[in-house]
Amino acid sequence: MNKQTSFRFYKPRKMKGRLAKLDPVKIADELARMEPELQATTFDQLSRIRALDVFQLLDVAHQERILEHLAADRAAELVEAMDPDDRAHLFNELPSHISEKFLDGLSPRERRLTDQLLGYPEESAGCIMTPEFVSLRPDWSVAEALSHIRKSGPGAETIHTLAVTDEHNQLTGMVELSDLVLAEPVRKVADIMNKELRSVRTDDDQEDVARLLQAANLLAVPVVNAEGHLLGLVTVDDAMDVLTREEEEDHARSGGAEPLRRPYFSVSDLRLAQSRIVWLLVLLVAATLTVHVLNSFEQTLDKAVSLALFIPLLIGTGGNAGAQSSTTVVRNMAVGHVQPGDFLRTLLREARVGLLLGMMLGLLSYPCVWIFADQSLALAVSLTLVSICSLASVVGALMPQIARACWVDPAVASTPFVTTVVDASGLMVYFLIAQAVLKL
Amino acid sequence: MNKQTSFRFYKPRKMKGRLAKLDPVKIADELARMEPELQATTFDQLSRIRALDVFQLLDVAHQERILEHLAADRAAELVEAMDPDDRAHLFNELPSHISEKFLDGLSPRERRLTDQLLGYPEESAGCIMTPEFVSLRPDWSVAEALSHIRKSGPGAETIHTLAVTDEHNQLTGMVELSDLVLAEPVRKVADIMNKELRSVRTDDDQEDVARLLQAANLLAVPVVNAEGHLLGLVTVDDAMDVLTREEEEDHARSGGAEPLRRPYFSVSDLRLAQSRIVWLLVLLVAATLTVHVLNSFEQTLDKAVSLALFIPLLIGTGGNAGAQSSTTVVRNMAVGHVQPGDFLRTLLREARVGLLLGMMLGLLSYPCVWIFADQSLALAVSLTLVSICSLASVVGALMPQIARACWVDPAVASTPFVTTVVDASGLMVYFLIAQAVLKL
Repeated sequence: MNKQTSFRFYKPRKMKGRLAKLDPVKIADELARMEPELQATTFDQLSRIRALDVFQLLDVAHQERILEHLAADRAAELVEAMDPDDRAHLFNELPSHISEKFLDGLSPRERRLTDQLLGYPEESAGCIMTPEFVSLRPDWSVAEALSHIRKSGPGAETIHTLAVTDEHNQLTGMVELSDLVLAEPVRKVADIMNKELRSVRTDDDQEDVARLLQAANLLAVPVVNAEGHLLGLVTVDDAMDVLTREEEEDHARSGGAEPLRRPYFSVSDLRLAQSRIVWLLVLLVAATLTVHVLNSFEQTLDKAVSLALFIPLLIGTGGNAGAQSSTTVVRNMAVGHVQPGDFLRTLLREARVGLLLGMMLGLLSYPCVWIFADQSLALAVSLTLVSICSLASVVGALMPQIARACWVDPAVASTPFVTTVVDASGLMVYFLIAQAVLKL
Repeated sequence: MNKQTSFRFYKPRKMKGRLAKLDPVKIADELARMEPELQATTFDQLSRIRALDVFQLLDVAHQERILEHLAADRAAELVEAMDPDDRAHLFNELPSHISEKFLDGLSPRERRLTDQLLGYPEESAGCIMTPEFVSLRPDWSVAEALSHIRKSGPGAETIHTLAVTDEHNQLTGMVELSDLVLAEPVRKVADIMNKELRSVRTDDDQEDVARLLQAANLLAVPVVNAEGHLLGLVTVDDAMDVLTREEEEDHARSGGAEPLRRPYFSVSDLRLAQSRIVWLLVLLVAATLTVHVLNSFEQTLDKAVSLALFIPLLIGTGGNAGAQSSTTVVRNMAVGHVQPGDFLRTLLREARVGLLLGMMLGLLSYPCVWIFADQSLALAVSLTLVSICSLASVVGALMPQIARACWVDPAVASTPFVTTVVDASGLMVYFLIAQAVLKL
């Protein structure tokens, strides 16, 4: 696992031999790290079956790029062989004229399944569910159930988890294949099925669905419509991918950039700059606030230039305290530990913690600044640390929650935005305190 | 799913009735959000079977707290019924005198399994593998394999994935239960098993193992020793938990705090402050660098106080650019897209992107500052933006990679540290440019 198998520097002729021997997982991983040009040519050298294996393991972004470069018939063949949910996910990302071309080329059965999934809203459970599942009846015996699975199993994406439905396709329970295999053949499905109905709706958020699968240790969760009719299953592998995608999004936004959605080296410099420039610009415009604040205190600054010495340290510390509180709150919102109803409780808590932290820092810095400068400046700096830490912690908890209330991803309102807000308000606090303490 | 079922305000007598009806997943979720005192009393009201279900769904931190408050015999019963890997994970977190007491109380079989897992290093695959698995022989028929599974399956943690080993317990392949069920009973296991050996070693890092499971869409991956002998399986539910734990760690550290490892409201204010104070202090000490830098330029500042107006804006923008580059690099290192060999490639790339971003920001800000102040100040600010963005992007890419080279979690060297380094060096750049441009 730790050895890095790289074939980036192999000659094309030698590569073909190597590719036939490598694990598809390794190939997919290497492809994902390649520069765009090499990706398609390498993929082209894979045998038919291997190509399909590898293709299904790739991210949507890479699937897209490879399809662009393949001969039309080979591309159509790959698309036809995909699982319907993965195919729908891919089509959602493709430019519509390309996805429509592929859609037209599909067999009637696959086309129907795909059309159905494409109808659901983005990021919903409907988009990632597989409509190819096996359902059992509660009054069947285990032997009957197993023989039904043997008949209809090969077309399904998973038979590890099986849904139990009545004659109206109403979901009544779930049963795992392992329980069927271990049970006496004469027992009824109804006796061994899990009646704890953990189902989700087609329009439930993908992330919530994935967290449910994780919290309940499930291999698949059934998706039903408003009437409780079974429409599909979301499997654990798709749930893991959703969580990773969401994490990547949160991570990128917490650093003030848009997610790349592909590996670092497979995007161009320009694309990388593009994912960052809007944020930088917005933040730069917001930062002009600090210029205005300082401008309005220019006289004070003129009288005591030494005040300027502590500006970066103070607003830096405020930014750090704000980052701490906002990342904690964003993360706990994402995993459901901070609910919309916890608004005030969170603010009060961060105010207390921020005050505590500020008091510790203020006490520690007082003697240090006194040695370095003079006593009244030390007092101003210490008092500012106390205020700025409390303020930053509250702002850090406030902004993600406001974002959520406005239906914006809470991660958007994170570290860089909090820092910028804290910079401006912290400066104001600093100069007001300094004016009072130094009697300027 | 969206409805929040809360029983925090129910009277104890009413609660018992409600608890009997609720899904264990919901109960576990609610327990995790409760303040410490309520948690144990609520748990105490659960029926025996339900208590076990709920207990197994809880995080280690909550399991720990609940065990503390339960009667000794009830606690011992819960621990005995846990899966060995979950139990080992719990014991690793418990104070050693408590875990030893529980270890002594275990049945000989469970004790042996647990002892075995406790011997592996922390964060290794060995700690999270289940030693209770079923293995098949390649020369068995499918019918023989299924009948073996029926006999030995009930003691295993999972039978969805089965290992195939030779008579020396050497791993030769893997087969899924679904493939066995769908195959002709007379076929040989060797014919239907997957010979692509994706196994890991006991001392492989948990996160790598989890990423492998995810990349290859596996339900379980076999763990072998140096001789290729099968020792256990890591299942997908444990892999998901590992990923979530690692994400939480990265997320907290990227915000400059230690991970809480428990839900926000279940920790005390003091514990929250504790997870932050060390980082704040270290960063505050690092930030004193900025005071020294400014101090050495005090004369320049005295001559042109208006230079101070742009300090927060410039170092703020530098911090943002640094945060963007460090979060991108840290994330791509975590998922394996930036490897140790990519050191220089990453630095060059970030230098180019940083320069590009800086030039865009510099060009845009030039006329704005000109209007606001004067032309030479505008020039100084623009040139500083170009330099600070390039510098920050490189530092953002450099620090996590240096951290990894020193065996420190790359996430530690993220946003707040990058910001602090960029603050000090950015100030130096600003004043040097300003001295040259304004001829001070």
